[in-house]
Amino acid sequence: MSGARAVERIPPCSARAVELERGDELIVIDPEGQQVSDLVAFSRDDLDEYLSSGRSIDYASKLWLSTGDLLYSNRSRPMLAIVEDSCGRHDFTLTPCSKDTFAILYGETEGRPGCEGNLAQALAPYGIGVDRIPIAFNVFMHVSVDADTGRIAVLPPRSRPGDSIRLRAEMPLVVAMTACSAGQSNNFRYKPIDFGIERLGKP
Amino acid sequence: MSGARAVERIPPCSARAVELERGDELIVIDPEGQQVSDLVAFSRDDLDEYLSSGRSIDYASKLWLSTGDLLYSNRSRPMLAIVEDSCGRHDFTLTPCSKDTFAILYGETEGRPGCEGNLAQALAPYGIGVDRIPIAFNVFMHVSVDADTGRIAVLPPRSRPGDSIRLRAEMPLVVAMTACSAGQSNNFRYKPIDFGIERLGKP
Repeated sequence: MSGARAVERIPPCSARAVELERGDELIVIDPEGQQVSDLVAFSRDDLDEYLSSGRSIDYASKLWLSTGDLLYSNRSRPMLAIVEDSCGRHDFTLTPCSKDTFAILYGETEGRPGCEGNLAQALAPYGIGVDRIPIAFNVFMHVSVDADTGRIAVLPPRSRPGDSIRLRAEMPLVVAMTACSAGQSNNFRYKPIDFGIERLGKP
Repeated sequence: MSGARAVERIPPCSARAVELERGDELIVIDPEGQQVSDLVAFSRDDLDEYLSSGRSIDYASKLWLSTGDLLYSNRSRPMLAIVEDSCGRHDFTLTPCSKDTFAILYGETEGRPGCEGNLAQALAPYGIGVDRIPIAFNVFMHVSVDADTGRIAVLPPRSRPGDSIRLRAEMPLVVAMTACSAGQSNNFRYKPIDFGIERLGKP
């Protein structure tokens, strides 16, 4: 990690949106370990083009993406390339947690916005409403699959303090990311997420 | 299957859209065996509400849904209930095949529209464009997962001639479904899909 890069903090249970030029690198860091960051992306030039888990999984022929893999848009264009990954396990099958998730899965009635609500709030300046939040690239989220039954389990992340993933923008992007609000994904310790941007691209 | 129900045919490599009232039952049939039907759904009352694989997988805690499971919308409301399923294996992780899929995965340059293009054409009367085609419930599609590596493989469907799945509409819906155009999903024998609707709901 370059010392010249400023690191910013996403407080627990919140989200941030950033803009990237093609070539910029976004580093998402788990400062304390076992925390998840739900990440979504939209083409800055046409916000109807968005990160697609279904395309990315199909082209990679695997559920879990890591160094060397590409994250594709719904239009089958590369949006992000994973250029470094010290954790190695992320989920790309589940939608961001929401107040409904908390109610349906955990019986919670507080109405916390969850990652979905926090992403929508961060993306509101771009006119992207909650209905358009897709399945996220759930950085550091550890979901296991039983190959016989298809049963999944959300386990504590494998990320240790300081683990990070580095993503290179393959097109101008609006990216939003969270410090996840779901206890099940972060071993019930709601923690921050850090990030930095290396402005290597040309505006 | 009720004898009173008319069965309609979706010709190979095409799609159909139908409207369902709440309570209506849609039966999707594989008449010849080893064929896939990509199915998407939208709330007829508000087309911004759509079938969400990420929500459905999360609430069921499994990748592969069958009898007794619910298919949820992005707003966490049940859209369809699986009430019968003689095949038992369907995919819910991959986006419909498209001309880009064929180019990227198979080097095809003919520009066939694939399930994505066929679904968009069937949904055009509803003003739903290609960007809004989500990950489909890929009826009869057989995708295996390696639990250690996450590697997936698209295998020939397990469906035999006459296998079917029966889905009850839990809200008024626009549903579109295909006879799949991807050779890898149907063992390279492009075949039709049949369907019937039992109008049990009240308009």
